[in-house]
Amino acid sequence: MLDVKQVTIVGTGLLGASLALALRAKGYNGRIAGVGRRVETLDQARDLGCFDHLTVSTAEALSQARAGDRGQRHLAVVAAPLSHFEEIFSKIAVGDDPALVVTDVGSVKARVCALARHLLPAIERFVGSHPMAGSEQHGPKAACADLFEGKPCVITPESDTDPEALSLVENLWQYLGMRVINMDPVQHDRCVAEVSHVPHAVAALLVKLASADGGDALSIASTGFSDTTRIASGDPDVWVDIFEANQSAVIEATDRLERELARFRKAVARMDRIAIRRMLQGAKQVRDEWETARKQTLQAKGE
Amino acid sequence: MLDVKQVTIVGTGLLGASLALALRAKGYNGRIAGVGRRVETLDQARDLGCFDHLTVSTAEALSQARAGDRGQRHLAVVAAPLSHFEEIFSKIAVGDDPALVVTDVGSVKARVCALARHLLPAIERFVGSHPMAGSEQHGPKAACADLFEGKPCVITPESDTDPEALSLVENLWQYLGMRVINMDPVQHDRCVAEVSHVPHAVAALLVKLASADGGDALSIASTGFSDTTRIASGDPDVWVDIFEANQSAVIEATDRLERELARFRKAVARMDRIAIRRMLQGAKQVRDEWETARKQTLQAKGE
Repeated sequence: MLDVKQVTIVGTGLLGASLALALRAKGYNGRIAGVGRRVETLDQARDLGCFDHLTVSTAEALSQARAGDRGQRHLAVVAAPLSHFEEIFSKIAVGDDPALVVTDVGSVKARVCALARHLLPAIERFVGSHPMAGSEQHGPKAACADLFEGKPCVITPESDTDPEALSLVENLWQYLGMRVINMDPVQHDRCVAEVSHVPHAVAALLVKLASADGGDALSIASTGFSDTTRIASGDPDVWVDIFEANQSAVIEATDRLERELARFRKAVARMDRIAIRRMLQGAKQVRDEWETARKQTLQAKGE
Repeated sequence: MLDVKQVTIVGTGLLGASLALALRAKGYNGRIAGVGRRVETLDQARDLGCFDHLTVSTAEALSQARAGDRGQRHLAVVAAPLSHFEEIFSKIAVGDDPALVVTDVGSVKARVCALARHLLPAIERFVGSHPMAGSEQHGPKAACADLFEGKPCVITPESDTDPEALSLVENLWQYLGMRVINMDPVQHDRCVAEVSHVPHAVAALLVKLASADGGDALSIASTGFSDTTRIASGDPDVWVDIFEANQSAVIEATDRLERELARFRKAVARMDRIAIRRMLQGAKQVRDEWETARKQTLQAKGE
């Protein structure tokens, strides 16, 4: 169970709205407040029927949470694009109270944790999170109650994190069926550059490559191409923010991929079948093992 | 309907076995013969219950097709790894007869068509095919009757192709629900380098990139990474053959991707949000339109 009187979700897009749906699906019966910027998004979130309160004001949502038993904890989850974090943290800071624990779902952690340290009055009650769940779709309409089920969630507590805040945030994600992994914010950013940010850029570049000839190549593309490039349909604004916030790790991972690509090109140019086969076999083995473990976790969670 | 007395499928792996299943599912009631190299594969193909005859001998399968009405056409479909094509074409050539039309499912066409021209006695009755359908799995156990449904199939007739042979091969793929596209073999190879071969290499390289740190990055990878790298679980032996047979187009497409990746890296390094956004937005738009059209075709075919 999740022992907080209110969860305030700041940002009611795909992730924020899915979080509200998932909390209800798991039986959470405290208050869920949603904060959005646009009336249209709030209306769509309202249609989901899982928010008790929807507002454009973070201050208003948090002040409602302070009503009643002032000692009982409540939780704010920032689920907005990274470029909105500064403004949102500032608003949370104004109404801060000792019962509030703050987390987020941002795809980058070092910059978010630094911003939290700079802006929030009580950094010990902030724990960065990154649920590794999403979709190429966006907005509350695409929300889904089992989005988090069986997926990994990174949390990035630091040395001065309050143990109770940490266990509350850990509890939140486990409550939704996630596998929680502790990481240093910098280590997290390096890892996501490799498994998410650079793959995202590559997916977009592959689409660009295939479309340069005016459509001939795309006319014969099929299932493999669709899966490989699915993430390239993600929201460009969200992703520009991610590349900016994780600039150095993205550059480092891109450089490594460029070196690997150059090595592959050389092996093909001299037709070194052994080197090409070794590369493909190594990747297949790693991926097969990883995918088997991933599917077992998803199945164990009943997906 | 498909008006041939026998379809001889040389190679009973995923594609060959799926072809046999699909023919039966569509109501084809002529003979289906399967030729395999290994007893284990033939046994697995037999378990599917859709082959009339399974043998290790191409000559034997084709001689049975010549029995009875010698004027009635029959079809041979080469569905083996590319490195076996030379041997298989040589065997088909020995028993050639005017009623036989030959096609294949090879992922590369220029080299296959040249090999056919060199080895087959009647190049006018050979039409290269590349059904854009597959899976990261392999073998008859992974076969699936609707593998071809709604997918594109490239055929590569040349100036001296017999019109009746062409229409028969076209008919075969349309019978299985495919959307048939005519292309020049060289153009086909350039296109598949872009939408299949280089994406395959990149998927494997992304797995390599993510696994270099001993597993930290993979431990937090999720659905996006799984989709992006799915094809990296393909059979390394099949893919070494493909990279060899399509060497120059693969190098050319790899060079273009390297240039795109370098351009992306520069945009991130100078944090040119406009350039990054333009790239992402362009890719999203192209992919969204392409994916919508692809899904419509799949749905129209009742998948």
